Amino acid sequence: MNVDVLVVGAGPAGLTAGIYCVRRGLSALVCEGKIPGGTVAITPWVENYPGFKRISGVELAQKIEEHAREQKVELKQDAVVSVEKKGVLFEATLAGGEKVSSKAVILAMGAMHKSLGVKGEKELSGRGVSYCATCDAPLFKKKRVAVIGGGNTALSSALLLLSLASKTFLVHRREEFRGEEAMLKQAEQAGVEKIVPFIPLEILGKSKVSGLKVQHAKTLEEKTLELDGVFICVGEVPASELAKKIGVTIDKDGYIQVDKECRTSVEGVYAAGDITGWLKQIVTAEYMGAQAAISAFEFIKKEKVKGIIH
Amino acid sequence: MNVDVLVVGAGPAGLTAGIYCVRRGLSALVCEGKIPGGTVAITPWVENYPGFKRISGVELAQKIEEHAREQKVELKQDAVVSVEKKGVLFEATLAGGEKVSSKAVILAMGAMHKSLGVKGEKELSGRGVSYCATCDAPLFKKKRVAVIGGGNTALSSALLLLSLASKTFLVHRREEFRGEEAMLKQAEQAGVEKIVPFIPLEILGKSKVSGLKVQHAKTLEEKTLELDGVFICVGEVPASELAKKIGVTIDKDGYIQVDKECRTSVEGVYAAGDITGWLKQIVTAEYMGAQAAISAFEFIKKEKVKGIIH
Repeated sequence: MNVDVLVVGAGPAGLTAGIYCVRRGLSALVCEGKIPGGTVAITPWVENYPGFKRISGVELAQKIEEHAREQKVELKQDAVVSVEKKGVLFEATLAGGEKVSSKAVILAMGAMHKSLGVKGEKELSGRGVSYCATCDAPLFKKKRVAVIGGGNTALSSALLLLSLASKTFLVHRREEFRGEEAMLKQAEQAGVEKIVPFIPLEILGKSKVSGLKVQHAKTLEEKTLELDGVFICVGEVPASELAKKIGVTIDKDGYIQVDKECRTSVEGVYAAGDITGWLKQIVTAEYMGAQAAISAFEFIKKEKVKGIIH
Repeated sequence: MNVDVLVVGAGPAGLTAGIYCVRRGLSALVCEGKIPGGTVAITPWVENYPGFKRISGVELAQKIEEHAREQKVELKQDAVVSVEKKGVLFEATLAGGEKVSSKAVILAMGAMHKSLGVKGEKELSGRGVSYCATCDAPLFKKKRVAVIGGGNTALSSALLLLSLASKTFLVHRREEFRGEEAMLKQAEQAGVEKIVPFIPLEILGKSKVSGLKVQHAKTLEEKTLELDGVFICVGEVPASELAKKIGVTIDKDGYIQVDKECRTSVEGVYAAGDITGWLKQIVTAEYMGAQAAISAFEFIKKEKVKGIIH
């Protein structure tokens, strides 16, 4: 099939890109291998999307999807496996075998947090186990929490939690932190308790988190921290495989590099949302989706005037 | 009074900044001389804020305000007349005379579109008269519209409308356009009809726009265009007076210059929303409000560690 803009990924970034494309008179196909909604759809509660005081992630994802459908955005539940430029158009191949040709492409495949892979993690996710301090820190006011990880995200999460929680532990398997020294110092001065070098073994709790069992990396000594919350900040994996194939510039962590107009290094290809490494929030994804759609619109107009595409 | 962060302006940018501050454990005061909601509150209908298929601007503004109140953001209906750095803190004076001292400041005063100042403009605003093509173009599918103005906003609005409307006029009082030559060419090639040099005299219509009366700048010949919509793109005035007083860098059009983290040229001062000249949309304002709050939070943490503030 032929469309003006192919949008890869149906989280808030992709769906908003679709809405803004269609409202500018472009046809847009939004492809998604999984269910629409992206990370929002697997977020228990959202309290920081302005206009909705408190809404379940599933419900918000559905509302945004319905909004896109109302605006005549075409949605397809099929993953995009490759995109390449063929002449003046982009040609995508979907997992189901279908070919889609488009004048511009918006990449909005998101990023997945890495799992710790310990017992209790999956069972207690959303019940004290969180992967996003910016989203969930307010739920742990005056509670006891541990942040697991050694990078900047772990350190900034600890700093944030320190100002809200009654007690904040920072658990890391090594003595050294990958994150910035200055941030680590800030966290230490603000009263974080470092638990290093300790390896998380199990998150404890029945219906909600009650503790974390850890083991010393060298002595193998085991101990249990009594906790209300565990923030797992052990890294993220941007879903940028497709981006590599198209040849857009990616930073050392795998995020697609974009400018303020959401342009990538390849003309006609734009990126929006978590895959860019910008602030991982719904409002960011939506802003970038809108901006990417407008940049795609302007690109297509220009190419039409030049007589390159029709 | 003392707060951690003073937010100036209660549109979507300011209110979102307030929400994100409070959720990080900072106290935030949002000051606004007029009613909360900013430009949204005077927008008839919003159809491109994801999650709400169609909502009146007033209702959406109220929802965002209620959301901020629910999160314990403090709102004050009082204009900020000056802000200056006194020692390590910022001291603001409100129109009512009150002094507010804060550790960081977020500027979100918005921008006002300029009025044309002709008969019928005010009466038919939201009834065919619009100031935002990105927002309202879809309402004019297969209709006849005129864009008034000679700058880039007028040209990009004409380009957008050309792809949706059945007929697009571009009315400008001079033969020469201030906007980019390339965009003008695009618009001409795409079929815009230039009405130059013609001065708008009156927007016609009873309950909705039916036409535009214009007069030739030299011959004084008058004529009437039959229309369904009039887009007034004669400029914007960013409310940046206060910003000038604080000394942040402003571009030639009066917009506050910020980086991706919404930092201005003055440490501890951040800006978000329409006042920055970024894409004038609710999703942009909210993203920037969130990002400005996070930057303010990080600044305050750092200053605390250094022992500069407490």
